Amino acid sequence: MTREENDLVTRVGPGTPMGTLMRQYWVPALLSSELPKPDCDPVRVMLLGEKLIAFRDSLGRVGLIQNHCPHRGASLFFGRNGDCGIRCVYHGWQFDIHGNCIDMPNEPNESDFKRKVKALAYPCVERGGLVWAYLGPRAELPPLPDIEVNQLPEGECAIVPTMLECNWLQAVEGEIDTSHSGFLHFGSIQPDDVAEGTFLHYTVKDRAPRYSVVDTDYGVMYGAYRPARPGYTYWRIAQFMFPFFTQTPEGILGHHVITNAWVPMDDYHTMAFIMIRKDPREQAWPGRHPIQGNADKYPTVQTPVLPNTSEWFGRFVSAVNATNDYGLDRARQRNGTDYSGIPYLPAQDRAMQESMGSIYDRTQEHLAVSDVMVIRVRRRLLAAARALAERQVVPPGVDCPAVYRNRSGSIILPEGADWIQATKELRQAFTDHPEVLLQQP
Amino acid sequence: MTREENDLVTRVGPGTPMGTLMRQYWVPALLSSELPKPDCDPVRVMLLGEKLIAFRDSLGRVGLIQNHCPHRGASLFFGRNGDCGIRCVYHGWQFDIHGNCIDMPNEPNESDFKRKVKALAYPCVERGGLVWAYLGPRAELPPLPDIEVNQLPEGECAIVPTMLECNWLQAVEGEIDTSHSGFLHFGSIQPDDVAEGTFLHYTVKDRAPRYSVVDTDYGVMYGAYRPARPGYTYWRIAQFMFPFFTQTPEGILGHHVITNAWVPMDDYHTMAFIMIRKDPREQAWPGRHPIQGNADKYPTVQTPVLPNTSEWFGRFVSAVNATNDYGLDRARQRNGTDYSGIPYLPAQDRAMQESMGSIYDRTQEHLAVSDVMVIRVRRRLLAAARALAERQVVPPGVDCPAVYRNRSGSIILPEGADWIQATKELRQAFTDHPEVLLQQP
Amino acid sequence: MTREENDLVTRVGPGTPMGTLMRQYWVPALLSSELPKPDCDPVRVMLLGEKLIAFRDSLGRVGLIQNHCPHRGASLFFGRNGDCGIRCVYHGWQFDIHGNCIDMPNEPNESDFKRKVKALAYPCVERGGLVWAYLGPRAELPPLPDIEVNQLPEGECAIVPTMLECNWLQAVEGEIDTSHSGFLHFGSIQPDDVAEGTFLHYTVKDRAPRYSVVDTDYGVMYGAYRPARPGYTYWRIAQFMFPFFTQTPEGILGHHVITNAWVPMDDYHTMAFIMIRKDPREQAWPGRHPIQGNADKYPTVQTPVLPNTSEWFGRFVSAVNATNDYGLDRARQRNGTDYSGIPYLPAQDRAMQESMGSIYDRTQEHLAVSDVMVIRVRRRLLAAARALAERQVVPPGVDCPAVYRNRSGSIILPEGADWIQATKELRQAFTDHPEVLLQQP
Repeated sequence: MTREENDLVTRVGPGTPMGTLMRQYWVPALLSSELPKPDCDPVRVMLLGEKLIAFRDSLGRVGLIQNHCPHRGASLFFGRNGDCGIRCVYHGWQFDIHGNCIDMPNEPNESDFKRKVKALAYPCVERGGLVWAYLGPRAELPPLPDIEVNQLPEGECAIVPTMLECNWLQAVEGEIDTSHSGFLHFGSIQPDDVAEGTFLHYTVKDRAPRYSVVDTDYGVMYGAYRPARPGYTYWRIAQFMFPFFTQTPEGILGHHVITNAWVPMDDYHTMAFIMIRKDPREQAWPGRHPIQGNADKYPTVQTPVLPNTSEWFGRFVSAVNATNDYGLDRARQRNGTDYSGIPYLPAQDRAMQESMGSIYDRTQEHLAVSDVMVIRVRRRLLAAARALAERQVVPPGVDCPAVYRNRSGSIILPEGADWIQATKELRQAFTDHPEVLLQQP
Repeated sequence: MTREENDLVTRVGPGTPMGTLMRQYWVPALLSSELPKPDCDPVRVMLLGEKLIAFRDSLGRVGLIQNHCPHRGASLFFGRNGDCGIRCVYHGWQFDIHGNCIDMPNEPNESDFKRKVKALAYPCVERGGLVWAYLGPRAELPPLPDIEVNQLPEGECAIVPTMLECNWLQAVEGEIDTSHSGFLHFGSIQPDDVAEGTFLHYTVKDRAPRYSVVDTDYGVMYGAYRPARPGYTYWRIAQFMFPFFTQTPEGILGHHVITNAWVPMDDYHTMAFIMIRKDPREQAWPGRHPIQGNADKYPTVQTPVLPNTSEWFGRFVSAVNATNDYGLDRARQRNGTDYSGIPYLPAQDRAMQESMGSIYDRTQEHLAVSDVMVIRVRRRLLAAARALAERQVVPPGVDCPAVYRNRSGSIILPEGADWIQATKELRQAFTDHPEVLLQQP
Repeated sequence: MTREENDLVTRVGPGTPMGTLMRQYWVPALLSSELPKPDCDPVRVMLLGEKLIAFRDSLGRVGLIQNHCPHRGASLFFGRNGDCGIRCVYHGWQFDIHGNCIDMPNEPNESDFKRKVKALAYPCVERGGLVWAYLGPRAELPPLPDIEVNQLPEGECAIVPTMLECNWLQAVEGEIDTSHSGFLHFGSIQPDDVAEGTFLHYTVKDRAPRYSVVDTDYGVMYGAYRPARPGYTYWRIAQFMFPFFTQTPEGILGHHVITNAWVPMDDYHTMAFIMIRKDPREQAWPGRHPIQGNADKYPTVQTPVLPNTSEWFGRFVSAVNATNDYGLDRARQRNGTDYSGIPYLPAQDRAMQESMGSIYDRTQEHLAVSDVMVIRVRRRLLAAARALAERQVVPPGVDCPAVYRNRSGSIILPEGADWIQATKELRQAFTDHPEVLLQQP
């Protein structure tokens, strides 16, 4: 990758090619629960390099408005939220969720200046616990993507937000890199530690899977495969969906419902929203962490989170971070309790992604067979950003919400089976599946 | 305002047009009390982007000398102050308040190198508790400005210093913006909360005053007016005086003596010196905060200050600052105790000024009728800086100390009166006034 | 000095002229004791502007390898050290001390990609408690310099490491500047405080010595001289040795064995390694601090050190530093306990060197007679860097380890003696000296 390509694919501020690409899509901005009720406290939100203030108005609608009051620039974070708008406390100018100035009480009655003043405000909609925002140019808004986990009935989806101190693409690349699981996460687990017949048994028995990668209408899909019991192949199937969504191959294909959003706050910070269907059956599945024979060897899935502050990067900061080397414990690393010595699974990923630096210099890397998915996703991103910039080509999925109806997961197929054909139905979201057998053939 | 104008009007380092303008004037550098006695500890002073060391010599004279020893650059902050000079502890070179090297003990006796070495040192004078410095080019020093509050007999003037973390112009603009008082400071107060006939009653009864702005020989003056009782008009009269002084309209015109200096430490930090005449009668005046019926609704005027440190920006830092959102209390904001939820009046101002960012991007603003004073002051500053840079025009007031003899304040005049004529005598500083009636007509 | 020369002589990153010069030499990278045993924890090392990971492999050999894994850039600091290599925990790639990729377990067995991947790794050797690294271009390594103190039998050399927050040249210049001792360190000591006949007596009796400076094959040597008892001269003899070594004149010439390395971590941080022969006889010598009549007047030689952290600049940070003004105690300064008020000798030096700023702007200085050694060393550095850049001239000492065989120290010679001839033998390292008389003639 050239330095120019690296810049192009990573930078997302206003006016950049990748920033313009992302602004074609709805983007998750914050949790609905961060604005718990009408007229509650505003929240500082950094999104795609823009400083914004989120608020919920008296009717319960969410507004996402420029930080600086259009008048003389005081922060609207200090604003009074009420009467269907946020009111700057400097001179009392009030704005509704559309950015209209609906009151300008320090001006003479006869003035109509307030009609000429408009704050930058982005349309927001809420679904499944997320506030989605549209920072793009269209007057007629595009549809929300048909992401299954985000459309589950209330209470069926868990969302885990975490702030990452690195560029969004490092986070995405970490997610679509299935190869690292057998090392970073499960490198200490030996085949004998895990019951024969489980996914994890095959994962740790062969840590160098092969890959099949295909371009799709929503982005890129891969199947990583290795031998299962004689005559069968173990497949891990996962997706990258434009512009920054990933679906992971953990869990049973057809049963597992997960989508992760890696939303750029700016070029150097990323807000991760892990969205997963709560599924008691999956928890009990013997091939998945953390329920295994030797539970000590499995990294903890939940990391402690620091209390939110009102700083721009003060939301959902992990207590396990670069300042404490992610809890690195060399004794655990040495004695094999953890391969990495980092006892929290998500922190293992962050340690890798953040230690690359704020924006990794990809001119220095050496990509291998296992990076075929990473390579393909970069190509698609670059191609889409260039096509939009040069030929105004609408990027994948913007006008086709249905392409997001995908599931990821693991499955065991007969050797030689066409994985794409064989899994077509199980990868389809929003269908009523018959009961899936928990013990795969 | 264009980006170029914004840069020109805000930046004050050596060689910048506005920095050159400010260097035509005497500028308040620190408090006399920061150097309490001869040969006391030196103080780090950042002024107009220059790192300086202030010290009081054995004769009680104040020196303001370059931070880096002219020899090899060690900081003179560590210097030994005594024997009528500050002595670098590296090699013992000693400098007097004029910057002369008066001892060079590590050189051979026959050397006269010390006559060739001169430290940058700025002339200082003390008056009214302030140390004034002249950082300009003239060998024959200009006169000090005739600022009344700074010439009161000892003990009659209170000086409140505070460090602001933003560009000086944001502070000045906040001060000359009388419109915000009715919102940021008194937005929670209703007319019925305040006795009829008081200034504050009219202020909160009509929060959209009209403005009359006039250019003067010292800068700009405004009168903001709104109806008082029938047949009368309530006037708030205040001044901007070159290059960064303001006088506020609180208090009774003719009685109220106040001047505020907003001294640039560098482009991103400002030292405010609020200088006000201690006046027991004024405190009792029923039209002024904080003595009112419902005292709970008045913001606290004094903010707690952190202990000084010896860092460059470690003097007079408010404990109520950006790191704690200026003590923002959403419950107080919501229940109307404070309009802003910030319980300290000066912190309310700083929250607005600092939240604009270090240097606000004025290309983004939307100025209204109430900003007419702000607009005029900018124009005068830009014009003066350009006239100096392009045609060597001496800026307003430099050679005319008497133009600073002004008072600001509030007054109630008959409807239709010419405010400038009617207040001419009351606005004149240094006169012996007859007793002013505390209850205005 | 011009700004260009100042940049040229101070900056040491890859590709800079001075950085290229330094890369011709072996440089001390860390202490052997920082890697106490085979397969111990890796250490982050910043060296000449490069982020590196030091580790000791299973055979006890030290590796110094690029921080970012050549694969996708995760930090090798988190790596598993064992089996004769460091293994990235992201995908298990393992590298030996030569940078060879010796295992790539996530690739298919048939892949030979690992032969194509090589990490940047610098050769290291250990001697006398130091790990030396060679960051230069030669395939055939140059010899280590014959620095005596680094070749003493185990246990006879003490190494004191300290991190300095300034450019390396400020540290070097502080060391070769013998003039400051009589002020910064001993300015409070009067001749009567010290026994007649001791070195220190003469030092404080005449604080403006003369200088004789000579270019040598290893760098520059000076002799600073002043009167001793009638008919004799007190000489302080010290060296600068390419590229950043100094030897100090404290102690008895012929007896005193010391070399200090001022190793650039980057342009703004320096790691000092003070290497000194432990010598019980020297401690008792009455002419040296700290054993004197009035012990209170001598600054403490050891400063407290903060616990190491795993940050890039987290090793050997003094607890007495800029954040606390180096323990400055104005009362001690004022009452003459310490000339500087800083009670620790090394902190006195750091206060001067660091307060010049990260990289001092040498266009502002005024060099005097006492700076003749500083001037000469700069010239030699500039000349050597330019000769290398322009004419590929191998810099002094690179191929001639024997030129480093020097001792520094103090001596009293008959008036008019040729100091160079008279001290030739005593300055020679590695010789068996007859017993040196502790009381000089």
